[in-house]
This record gives sequence, C-alpha cells and structure tokens, in this order.
Amino acid sequence: MYIGIDVGGTSIKAGVVNHAGDIITKYAVPTPLDNNENFLKAMLESVQVALKEANVKADEIEAIGIGAPGVVDREKGLLVNSPNIPYINAPVREYLQKNLKNVPVLVENDANSAALGEYYKADNAKNFVFITLGTGVGGGVVIDGKLFTGTNGAAGELGHVVIHAGGRKCGCGREGCWEAYASVTGLIKTTKEHKDEIKGIKEGDRISGRTVFELAKKGDKDAERVRNMWIEEVAIGITDMVNIFQPDELVVGGAISKEGDVIMEPIREYVKKHSFNVGELKRTNIVASRIGGDAGIIGAALLYKNKSEG
Amino acid sequence: MYIGIDVGGTSIKAGVVNHAGDIITKYAVPTPLDNNENFLKAMLESVQVALKEANVKADEIEAIGIGAPGVVDREKGLLVNSPNIPYINAPVREYLQKNLKNVPVLVENDANSAALGEYYKADNAKNFVFITLGTGVGGGVVIDGKLFTGTNGAAGELGHVVIHAGGRKCGCGREGCWEAYASVTGLIKTTKEHKDEIKGIKEGDRISGRTVFELAKKGDKDAERVRNMWIEEVAIGITDMVNIFQPDELVVGGAISKEGDVIMEPIREYVKKHSFNVGELKRTNIVASRIGGDAGIIGAALLYKNKSEG
Repeated sequence: MYIGIDVGGTSIKAGVVNHAGDIITKYAVPTPLDNNENFLKAMLESVQVALKEANVKADEIEAIGIGAPGVVDREKGLLVNSPNIPYINAPVREYLQKNLKNVPVLVENDANSAALGEYYKADNAKNFVFITLGTGVGGGVVIDGKLFTGTNGAAGELGHVVIHAGGRKCGCGREGCWEAYASVTGLIKTTKEHKDEIKGIKEGDRISGRTVFELAKKGDKDAERVRNMWIEEVAIGITDMVNIFQPDELVVGGAISKEGDVIMEPIREYVKKHSFNVGELKRTNIVASRIGGDAGIIGAALLYKNKSEG
Repeated sequence: MYIGIDVGGTSIKAGVVNHAGDIITKYAVPTPLDNNENFLKAMLESVQVALKEANVKADEIEAIGIGAPGVVDREKGLLVNSPNIPYINAPVREYLQKNLKNVPVLVENDANSAALGEYYKADNAKNFVFITLGTGVGGGVVIDGKLFTGTNGAAGELGHVVIHAGGRKCGCGREGCWEAYASVTGLIKTTKEHKDEIKGIKEGDRISGRTVFELAKKGDKDAERVRNMWIEEVAIGITDMVNIFQPDELVVGGAISKEGDVIMEPIREYVKKHSFNVGELKRTNIVASRIGGDAGIIGAALLYKNKSEG
C-alpha cells in the first residue's frame, strides 16, 4: 500500500492507494498558509485520517509520494518553494519519516505526479504525454515507462513553448507561449477580447472559462466561434507534442477537460489533419482525463513504484 | 568494428568506425537515381571500398547501420521511400547480409542517426537533443542514453512545431512551423523578403543562405539585422526544446553551424534569458556540431551499440 499526497494552494489531499493505483480512502485538509510547521502538521493529519478511515496501519505503507506545485528537491526530500504556498524548504521527507514511518518519501512536481497517475490508468501505453489546462498549462511526460524529468529535474514544461512568437506576455517571461493561449486564463483573455462580438455577454457580466462553453450550448454562434478559437490554440500545441513525442497516448486534464468530446473531438480532428505523418503510422490516442482531480494523489502514490520497476 | 552508411540525395557514404566512434576510413559513391538494384549495388560498393582501404575484413564487422532520409522500416530492414531518392522498399538488410556478412543491419532516419553520432561525441550527456539546420529542420533526441523514436518510430520531428501560428506554409502542411523559419530555406526566404532593405544586395543577385552572413561580415548593418532575425527564429525553437527536454547538451548541426559563435553566442544568450528556470538549475550546454558531415556515418555505425548497451 502507498500514500499519495497532492499539495494544492487550497487543500492538501492524502490518499491510501493500492498497487493498482486505486484510491482506498482519501482525506483533505485546508492548506495552512502561514509557516512550514503548520503546513507539515496539516500534511501529517491528512495522512493519519486517511489511514484511519482506510483501516490501514502505518506499518503497511511501503512508500509515500508527494506532488507539489513549484520547486521540489527530490534528493533532499524538500518542498523548496511554490508560487501559492508560503513554505520554504519544507522538510517533508524527514518529517513524515519521523512521525509516521521510516519509508521512502518521494517528492515530485504536481504536473508530473498527475501525469504518472494518468499514465497508470492509460491503455497499454509506454510513451505518454499529459497536458493539464488550468490557470496555466502544465505537462508531464513518460518515456519508455519512466517519468521523464530531464537532467535537472525541470523537463516537461510543455506550456512554455512559443506558438505565437511575439504574442501575449507569458508568466515565464516569454512572449507567445502556448500557456498564454491554451490555459483557462488564456481562454478568459480571448473571451474578453471578443466579448463585444458575443451577444450573450452583457456589460458587467463576470467572464469565466465556462462563459463561452455555456453560451455555445445555448446556441450562441459567436460564443461557439470564440470557444473554437480556444480549442484550436489547444490543438496546435497538442499537435506539436505529438510531432515531438509520438506517444501511445496523450491525456488532457484540468477541470475544463470535463467538457469531454466538445473539446476532444475537434482536437482529435485537428491533430489527425495537421500532425506529421509518413506512411501509415500508429497514431496517438488522445483522450480526456480518466481520473480528474484524483490524478495527483494516485500519481504521487505510484512515484515509488515507477522509480523501482523495470 | 562497425560500418556506418549515410544515405543522401547526392552520395552514399560508408565508413569503417571503431567502438569509440572514430572513422577509420570512409568512401563515398554517387547515389544512383534510377532503381533499387543500382542503389543497392552502389551501397555495397561504398562499403567494400571503405573496408579495403581500412584493411578490415568483412569478418571483423559486428554490425552495420544505415541512416537514410524519409521513411525506413526498422523491423524489416527496408528503406521504404524518400523525397529525393527513388528507391521503394529497398531491402538493404537482406542485400548486405547476403553479399557482405550475416551481421545485424539496422536502419534509421538520417537525422536520428546524426543525432546519435553527435551524442557519442558529447561531454558526458545522458539526455541530448540534436537540431540540424538545412533545407529543413531535422531533429533527434536521446533520452537516458537511448535514441528516442517514440512508439511508432517517427518521434523527434522537432522542426514541425508551430512557432508562428498562421504563418508561413510548411512542407508538412501546417502553417508557421519552426522549420519554415529556422531552416536555410527559411533564411533565404527571410533574406528575399527584406532584400530591398539591404544595400549590399543588387537586383538580380543570387540569394543563398550565406548572403546575409557574408554581407554582415563586411559590415553591412542591414544584412546583420536580417541575419539576427533568423538567429532569433532558431533560438525560439531551441528554447522550446530546452523547456521540453532540459537536456545535458543540445547540438546544432547542418553546414550553417560552421558559422560557429556568430550563431551560437546569440542563441546561448537568448536561451539563457528566455528558457524556463526555477531556482538554480543545471543549464543545457548548447554547442555547434563537433563532427559535421561525419555525424551521419558515425551515428549509423553506432546504432547497434546504442541498441545493445545499458
């Protein structure tokens, strides 16, 4: 049995997860936003409650994995820092080993953890790409069955490839990154840029990532057009990833992936039409997230398994 | 001892290569452009002369590798087809095994072969990216010491990522691919688009990939500006590759890479400024090709070594 911990800006979620990647129980606590000590205590609490509810003893745990935003130190087992959570070098490995059980504690970037969770739920994939569309565009890559993090641990920043050179300023400092267009933040920006063309949007309406999706469902053709502009931005970057990695499977995650085939069908068509193809290649299977918000817990839990196997 | 064969549109080059990746001798013959049979005969001749000049017997050969443009069938050992050479399903494995020696014969895409050649000459790299700037932009990727070709064998089409969405039409069918800007063909196009601004270019002058480089060396500021525009297009894509792969080393090949630091210095500066960086990451070493036109022979020769080791 493994423990997977998904650290987010609003909650810390811990799950007891079996070897097959199924969550036995999970428990969430609010993320303390004051100091390392309270953060570590809250993380421990989330694990202890999850264990208790699963009726699993600490002795039965083989490894603990933690997926967290921002920078992690895999060697020392630290959460170094995060844009949203004010811990600094939180010694999660040491703390959990001392207070719970002296087992391997692995730390990983949250998008990579989620990628691994989706990978283990994929159909017979060896090469695998995960894209998550949220505030930003995150990514994770599995090559030949192993999570790929590059030499310095920072590979897979798939949102930070330029698709519109000289375009929108991105949080990373570049101009025209995929993330600046294909994220939900990018969708909101595109919606705002075109709001005067969309009859369903009234002056003073709050615009969210759902706005054009909801209006399009009601038959608003202008909203549909703007929604499709965004889907095409997503598809351009996915086509790039297919040309680079030719994975068995590419999974699209993030809350917006729940829109399902409204998004996925046009993406599949676009990729089929525009991706590099010579002869009759086996094509990448492109699907929406299978496990949604649980991907982070499951992937974190399976970090140790991925590191040890093969 | 290995044999490496680099198949090109004008010549077939065979080399006798040792385990360290050094060429003992090489021999080139013109590429027959009529049929499979003459193509196969010429390939065999190039090998036989190289062996003779190296004073190496066929018995001493452990494996043969062939790098070729277009589509190859790694399983069956065929050169399936190529945009420049009119063979169809040329049975190179069968032919060389029958006429030379019954050893492993591996076939690979030419950019991947060249990537492997450069990889084995790199300084202590495990994750490695090769870019070649020529008529197109080719690429090859080594992950954890192994040539990465994706599930269907077609991964690493690094030139076919979009950096100017909606921009120049690319040979692959997309609009705005990196290749359409960063290739030498792209450089010529950019030079032509700006030729009226460059005093050194007279009406009727033939414009090549060297034009702005040569004029800039003579002090032509307008030519220098256009040259730098092209260098920036190259650097945008390289920054993307660093963000995706965070390799130990990225090598830039193709004849134009002989311009050396005129190109490489601004690329390094651009990547340093624009690539994703959190904390103090080990940075990718970005260098020009170490082995130039020999990369294809050396990489092809070492295909078997790469496949067998680790």
